[in-house]
Amino acid sequence: MKHTLAVLVENKPGVLTHISGLISRRAFNIESIAAGYTEEPDMTRITIVVEADDKYELEQVVNQLSKLIDVIKIIDLTGQDSVHRELALIKVKAIPENRTELIGIVEIFRAHIVDVNKETMIIELTGEEMKIDAMCELLKDYGIIEIVRTGKVAMCRGPKAAKEV
Amino acid sequence: MKHTLAVLVENKPGVLTHISGLISRRAFNIESIAAGYTEEPDMTRITIVVEADDKYELEQVVNQLSKLIDVIKIIDLTGQDSVHRELALIKVKAIPENRTELIGIVEIFRAHIVDVNKETMIIELTGEEMKIDAMCELLKDYGIIEIVRTGKVAMCRGPKAAKEV
Repeated sequence: MKHTLAVLVENKPGVLTHISGLISRRAFNIESIAAGYTEEPDMTRITIVVEADDKYELEQVVNQLSKLIDVIKIIDLTGQDSVHRELALIKVKAIPENRTELIGIVEIFRAHIVDVNKETMIIELTGEEMKIDAMCELLKDYGIIEIVRTGKVAMCRGPKAAKEV
Repeated sequence: MKHTLAVLVENKPGVLTHISGLISRRAFNIESIAAGYTEEPDMTRITIVVEADDKYELEQVVNQLSKLIDVIKIIDLTGQDSVHRELALIKVKAIPENRTELIGIVEIFRAHIVDVNKETMIIELTGEEMKIDAMCELLKDYGIIEIVRTGKVAMCRGPKAAKEV
């Protein structure tokens, strides 16, 4: 089962290494990771998706992570009422004859074309993982040149911030 | 100066730890990191933004990274003609009296409201770093509860894939 962890950390060199090291030492595979600025200048928020079947072992990892000196708070967002989003840039073959078809797909997914040339286009898509997977599947027939995905970020619905939960 | 590195790696446990370890050992600060699936099932693409003033030293790190066994390719996208994007979820105070004003801001930035309740709303925004910074700055006056950002992903314009460059 996939678990989405929101990890609030102090913005110090080496934090990411400690966190990813701890997770991979426990043989959990990190499916995706996304780290960026937050509302506070000295705090970074890392969203990690891990595949973990053993709930007890995951709890242990969460406990160990929360003991790391630079970790402020860690929340398992799995099963909580929350918003999950990911961003993808997809470069796809787009010869003139296919372009209208591709524009149609882009509209269906409420995506955007952010670059175009004689042979290819880059599509920007935001959504849940499944939506991005579905679009990639559709675009395969045209020829995908490359994909870059941010990994998932997630936020609890409702008025509270994660650090107050 | 900020550098954006696209690192193509084999999808193996521990890769991220090696990469982030190598970068932070050289005392480069990782500003953001985003790792996700690609067009190939056993390849992950990691986009790293590092602050590095010394060009020579950065080159050394890139060289060392490319020698890591699981690294397939590494490209410095800085200065190249490329598309840069980031995704942010922003939870902001939204009492009924402010809601119309906030909806106006959301429209200007072509953002989306993805959750709303009596006290707050969650706004989803995609764009370059500066656009997200600008929106956060505007929303500060209403009261930002929390922000989660994916970190930047980037892709070269034109028909080629990064791994062929």
